[in-house]
Amino acid sequence: MNFIDIINKKRNKQELTTEEIYFVIDQIGKSPDYQFSALLMAICLNGMTRRETADLTGAMLYSGDIIDLERIEGVKVDKHSTGGVADTATLILVPLAASCGLPVVKMSGRGLGHTGGTLDKLESIPGFNISLTQKEAVKQVNDIKAVIMGQTGKLCPADGYLYKLRDVTGTVQSIPLIASSIMSKKLAAGTDAIVLDIKCGSGAFMKNLDDARELANIMVDIGRQLKRKVTAVITNMDQPLGTYIGNTLEVMEAAEVLKGKVKGDLYEVSLTLGSEMLVLGGLAENTQDARKMLEENIGNGKGLAKFKEIITAQGGLPYVLDDYSRFKQPKLKKEIYLKEGYVHGFDTESVGRASAALGAGRTSYDMPIDYSAGIIVNYRIGDYYDASKPFAVLFSDDEDKMKDGEEIFVEAVEISDKKTKPVKPVIEIISNI
Amino acid sequence: MNFIDIINKKRNKQELTTEEIYFVIDQIGKSPDYQFSALLMAICLNGMTRRETADLTGAMLYSGDIIDLERIEGVKVDKHSTGGVADTATLILVPLAASCGLPVVKMSGRGLGHTGGTLDKLESIPGFNISLTQKEAVKQVNDIKAVIMGQTGKLCPADGYLYKLRDVTGTVQSIPLIASSIMSKKLAAGTDAIVLDIKCGSGAFMKNLDDARELANIMVDIGRQLKRKVTAVITNMDQPLGTYIGNTLEVMEAAEVLKGKVKGDLYEVSLTLGSEMLVLGGLAENTQDARKMLEENIGNGKGLAKFKEIITAQGGLPYVLDDYSRFKQPKLKKEIYLKEGYVHGFDTESVGRASAALGAGRTSYDMPIDYSAGIIVNYRIGDYYDASKPFAVLFSDDEDKMKDGEEIFVEAVEISDKKTKPVKPVIEIISNI
Repeated sequence: MNFIDIINKKRNKQELTTEEIYFVIDQIGKSPDYQFSALLMAICLNGMTRRETADLTGAMLYSGDIIDLERIEGVKVDKHSTGGVADTATLILVPLAASCGLPVVKMSGRGLGHTGGTLDKLESIPGFNISLTQKEAVKQVNDIKAVIMGQTGKLCPADGYLYKLRDVTGTVQSIPLIASSIMSKKLAAGTDAIVLDIKCGSGAFMKNLDDARELANIMVDIGRQLKRKVTAVITNMDQPLGTYIGNTLEVMEAAEVLKGKVKGDLYEVSLTLGSEMLVLGGLAENTQDARKMLEENIGNGKGLAKFKEIITAQGGLPYVLDDYSRFKQPKLKKEIYLKEGYVHGFDTESVGRASAALGAGRTSYDMPIDYSAGIIVNYRIGDYYDASKPFAVLFSDDEDKMKDGEEIFVEAVEISDKKTKPVKPVIEIISNI
Repeated sequence: MNFIDIINKKRNKQELTTEEIYFVIDQIGKSPDYQFSALLMAICLNGMTRRETADLTGAMLYSGDIIDLERIEGVKVDKHSTGGVADTATLILVPLAASCGLPVVKMSGRGLGHTGGTLDKLESIPGFNISLTQKEAVKQVNDIKAVIMGQTGKLCPADGYLYKLRDVTGTVQSIPLIASSIMSKKLAAGTDAIVLDIKCGSGAFMKNLDDARELANIMVDIGRQLKRKVTAVITNMDQPLGTYIGNTLEVMEAAEVLKGKVKGDLYEVSLTLGSEMLVLGGLAENTQDARKMLEENIGNGKGLAKFKEIITAQGGLPYVLDDYSRFKQPKLKKEIYLKEGYVHGFDTESVGRASAALGAGRTSYDMPIDYSAGIIVNYRIGDYYDASKPFAVLFSDDEDKMKDGEEIFVEAVEISDKKTKPVKPVIEIISNI
């Protein structure tokens, strides 16, 4: 087998065999980068079939460690979001689902660019430790049903290599490559079933519904081929999901949802994803029943109690959820007034970048972040804004950052004289079960 | 300006600006190979406009030395063939055109794979020296009007880099890349006008007429944009051009044509190309007049005399043209008989590989070659072969090579019961004048 022949084949729009795809992944570290980048560009432009995509996922999955969750009883269900702004659903649905009896090993990431990261949000809770060994994680899940942590082991080194190369060769935007990258990492994390939150809109990687649907279908199909249950929920990202953007701010909003004080889109998306998790985990017959279980555990406080239990188990101080003033507080606060009118839309990616500029995010992985920085957005698409109250409130520790953040934020909001329809948070559900 | 943005642009089928193309060429040695290979694959699949192709040619042309032929009087006309089998037209038309007064600085290459190379053919003449300095070449052309030599100086290093990378990244087959690669080297050789012989058929890089025509049109257009007169002649390569294949064999056939003893396709193509050269050089009003001049100089022996003059000037022994037995002789000779029938076709590339297998060619640039090895093919497409005489005669110094060459050759000939039409050697002429 020969790398150049394989590149030529893909260049000529032919389907690569399973053996050829495993050969390519096996050549990492043996063949030069320029052959991989040529192949990646050919894949970007000529695509991959469903079979090829599943084979690439399998080849990357087996390129490194695979986490063994056998010692956890029950069906292990993971959840993954393709990334958005004010998307703190994980902090709501993991405790809620666990409080219903579902074992959840949630491996999360850090924020980069305009999107926040669950690990950063959790680290805004004093003492919270996200670095657990595999053994500690298994023990915690067997004890209290849930853990939220950073990735352990050397999962999918092949994906790591290709991801880095794609980033510098203009070959990021390929739906089969995106799908196989996400799925290989999720499957290497040892899960039995996955609920995917495919974000779609101005704050998401997938800007339009066709692309989001294609990504969802491909990922669900990878699950089918690799014998894992997968349900993909396409959700709207034309505005921030929650109304609080930032690290402590998002922990606070998650707590408010778990206390039953906040409804809205974040609540709706969290319960939709959580219901799908309970169904995949075999704890509910259908999503109606599952949703009732979740709503009950908001009403009776079991979800909030589980969140505190997770925080305590991972060394954090749970009392911050009862008294938000115990979080680190921002030095500066600025109320933003805009002209009167209907909220027509957001450039949601820019809203995320505004929050990052205030100090809540980073543009490279080694930047420190300011946990208290962020934005509260008081209005949503379709609302009428009468300019009597602040449209939003910005928080930062630094004057210059406040200025930058304000500038970006104000540019990102579109107010119109024309009535605008509100947008629905959940667009479509695609499943292989 | 940023390489990744440029890759993304081409990936999204957008046209690159002149500045972007010069930036890319300037990045050679500065940016990593994998970015070039990703861009090359995007060009292969998304193409380049005529303007982009001319800009790439210009950028590569100016990446190294440009030969200065100012000191040669008259219009300097070069000729380039895209490569075929038994294509010894250069050895005929350079002396012939020079004998008509056209100054010709012909820089040629060596054979590789199934195609022969003019330099190898010339080196089969005892003493012939192909390594001249630029100064020596200019002097020789001013003295006797012609030189045939290897490339001097460091022409188009950017093309050299990209050509090597294309070879190992499945990005060879792109007509704009092929066109700009050839044209940049030809223009760096300092010529005023170029006659291109675009081979088309089973023994050529361009297997079908559409591709050959596209290549011809692009190259002629590059000439138009870079202000050089270019005429492209598309010629048939569905069978070997001459009937003699090999190094000394092709020198012999060229001499026979110059002596007026051999006509046929090689004669026809040589005179067509030569006529176009005389017209571009301003020595004839039209190709009819030009052709008469060339025919005259075959009849009166001036063409042959010029060939001998060139050989003498470059240190070779011209008497081999009068007595072919003074060439190195092959040790083995084998007559090939085939079944009776019409000659339906050749896999011409395989005929070239058969000759190489006999010892006449090489598969890597450092292999020695056997000048006397080769093939005489006695029949052409459309001929009836009655099996009473040998279809071909093979020459080699080695039993094993003879066996290999015979095997490949026999496979490459198709004899049929059905009548087959002869093929015309000259298909089409495209010019920018």
